[in-house]
Amino acid sequence: MKTRFENGVIITGNKQNAWFKQGYMVIEDNKIVEIGDAEIEVGSSNAQYDQIIDLKGRWVMPGWVNTHGHAAMSLLRGYADDLPLKEWLEQKMWPMEGQFNADTVRAGTALAVVEMLKTGTTCFLDMYDHMSTVAKVVEESGIRAVLARGVIGLCPEEEQIRKLQEATQFALEWDHQANGRITTMMSPHAPYTCPPHYIQNIIEQAAKHQLPVHIHMSETAREVQQNVDDYGKRPVAHLRDLGVFELPTLVAHAVHVNEEEMDILQQYDVKVAHNPTSNLKLGSGIAPVPSYLKRGITVSLGTDSAASNNKLDMFQEARLAALIHKGAGEDPLAVPAEEALRMGTKWGAESVFLSQVGALEVGMEADFITINPNQAHLQPAHQPISHIIYSATGQDVEDVYVQGKQIVKNKECLFLDEERIIYEANQAFQKLNQV
Amino acid sequence: MKTRFENGVIITGNKQNAWFKQGYMVIEDNKIVEIGDAEIEVGSSNAQYDQIIDLKGRWVMPGWVNTHGHAAMSLLRGYADDLPLKEWLEQKMWPMEGQFNADTVRAGTALAVVEMLKTGTTCFLDMYDHMSTVAKVVEESGIRAVLARGVIGLCPEEEQIRKLQEATQFALEWDHQANGRITTMMSPHAPYTCPPHYIQNIIEQAAKHQLPVHIHMSETAREVQQNVDDYGKRPVAHLRDLGVFELPTLVAHAVHVNEEEMDILQQYDVKVAHNPTSNLKLGSGIAPVPSYLKRGITVSLGTDSAASNNKLDMFQEARLAALIHKGAGEDPLAVPAEEALRMGTKWGAESVFLSQVGALEVGMEADFITINPNQAHLQPAHQPISHIIYSATGQDVEDVYVQGKQIVKNKECLFLDEERIIYEANQAFQKLNQV
Repeated sequence: MKTRFENGVIITGNKQNAWFKQGYMVIEDNKIVEIGDAEIEVGSSNAQYDQIIDLKGRWVMPGWVNTHGHAAMSLLRGYADDLPLKEWLEQKMWPMEGQFNADTVRAGTALAVVEMLKTGTTCFLDMYDHMSTVAKVVEESGIRAVLARGVIGLCPEEEQIRKLQEATQFALEWDHQANGRITTMMSPHAPYTCPPHYIQNIIEQAAKHQLPVHIHMSETAREVQQNVDDYGKRPVAHLRDLGVFELPTLVAHAVHVNEEEMDILQQYDVKVAHNPTSNLKLGSGIAPVPSYLKRGITVSLGTDSAASNNKLDMFQEARLAALIHKGAGEDPLAVPAEEALRMGTKWGAESVFLSQVGALEVGMEADFITINPNQAHLQPAHQPISHIIYSATGQDVEDVYVQGKQIVKNKECLFLDEERIIYEANQAFQKLNQV
Repeated sequence: MKTRFENGVIITGNKQNAWFKQGYMVIEDNKIVEIGDAEIEVGSSNAQYDQIIDLKGRWVMPGWVNTHGHAAMSLLRGYADDLPLKEWLEQKMWPMEGQFNADTVRAGTALAVVEMLKTGTTCFLDMYDHMSTVAKVVEESGIRAVLARGVIGLCPEEEQIRKLQEATQFALEWDHQANGRITTMMSPHAPYTCPPHYIQNIIEQAAKHQLPVHIHMSETAREVQQNVDDYGKRPVAHLRDLGVFELPTLVAHAVHVNEEEMDILQQYDVKVAHNPTSNLKLGSGIAPVPSYLKRGITVSLGTDSAASNNKLDMFQEARLAALIHKGAGEDPLAVPAEEALRMGTKWGAESVFLSQVGALEVGMEADFITINPNQAHLQPAHQPISHIIYSATGQDVEDVYVQGKQIVKNKECLFLDEERIIYEANQAFQKLNQV
């Protein structure tokens, strides 16, 4: 099966930052086999394609890669806003999450996946519990995902052992499943929720099975201080000394990180998932993203969960990433639009250790989205990259493809029943004993 | 003509912050004559209405009031991003704007009004040139507006005089026109673009004709320093000493304002238009909004122009206002959702000196919008105010009413031809000699 998409504005997201005004792209099975500008194309013959799709001037870009989140928590959207982080987490989130079972997780995850797909995310990282349930939603929906059973070690040793076994078993069972759309990681929740020996046990398993590691790190100033109080060092040195960074690692947040710690992140090629909305909303602070970028540290974008965002639209994260560092540093040159786009696509894929997606290039798997530019807020229409970052939202997305297969068509998910999922999410929420 | 809207979730935006789960609202001619919750309603009879509209569970809220902008500059959306402010303004914006004529202004303003209406803004402040053209677009579209010919005094005296005459004449001619939907202000552009005597001449006219004043103030640190260098005082003292604050005044930006200056703003009841996106994007900084609110200073929200935003969606401004002050101050309690909503509605109306709009209450003119909550990103649907601020965008707006008259129906402007306006905006942009 060979399909030619033509007559679109194609933003490749590749290293040269190329974009094609009269773009075409040929997809064979799940891969891009040709891409370029029709104005300089030679030797194309329609006879060679099974199907030709006219993009009618639509903008095409790589699907967003959301590198940090907890999908099931979409059920708690708006449940407890505008509270101090500790109270929000300990008195609101944890007691509610304590009631989550596989059905709750299915309802919340399906809700999240509908929202992500409709707003142009083609790959998301999920760190949560009941991960087989999450994996099944991923399989059914057509989206791509990087999944990890997040483990919190604040429990008796036998429970620690059980959780770690579960996490490892899940990672091994689901890695490369769903036609390769699912990959897995190992995930100690955070330095402040996992004792040092437990983090070591987890990364031993990761090393043994060649799985990358995902962990929350230095989200709040308080948590950094606690790490110093408990272990005599800041989180970056702590994790390095535990051997975590010997493995491919993605840290989430990295808001409170000093220059010396950046040296370490840079040295070990640790990837950073920047979660601008969540860090703002919880009052955690503003991550030193311009410094990370200057050092060549790979920075990607995450929504975190809808309980602290309160949405899962990567256009919003990219816009915010392009805006807040300019304002906070009083530097209008910080995080230009092209870098924000890359953080959400190419660098996102690199952050979750996928090499086959994140840009539209020959040989890549065809994960892409289309946007209808024929709307007032995207005019004049001469600067698609600027408009994608500063002016568009996820609601401008029309079609979504993963591995060359269409999974959203004209704003409708093809493999998920949105109406039923909305109904079930509300039912699942009502069933929880609200605290 | 008496119309009853029923079966909606009505967010009144009034002082008690009331919202009705089974809301109804009765509009007679252009005003709200009844509003409440059907569950506790007594004595309603359908016979008394000319028309009954079933809101089918939609959320209803006051239309947004956008208190600072330059609509015509939508033509320059994405034209010059990611540049230092001085270069952006002097080398990009001003040379392009220097070529604007009435046709350009019409094209840009119509584009802006389509975008604002479709994203739920029912009233906008515009400070620009060719204001009769702007007023005509307002008249035709059905939107409400507060208009001022912004005058820059960096020119020979005779031109200053001509501009001031033009501004005064415009203000007198259009005040209370378009069925009262248009009101006018006088607007010296900024302390750094108007010599002191010229500001005094302008406010003399404002005082004479009882018009309020709108002015840019303390947007950047550099501009504050320049004011000190040129006049020996910071902008707030400078404007107070010139007598500006003796008149009802709305200042735009107010990013770099110290405690002493806040005392003055508070003393004179000066209103502040907070433009979070624009201040971030241009690297101007983050306004001390939590301090303003603590003092009871009226803070409202503005998009500024699409050249520095790059959109005109007040949902985005409200979201950003609710987010950035939490992050910048590491205080998750700063600017809760309810305050962000009020900044965009009630306090917006107060900032542009309108008492008949900004909340849904008996006696108010009926400027309101509806949102379809039946979407994944607004679920679970139990917290409409949270979801409006943190999760919705302007693209969730379905219907818009101004003075009880419907002007957007199912996401389409009823009195503007969006397709033609998009075409004309692109044509007008192409005609400019790009610098």
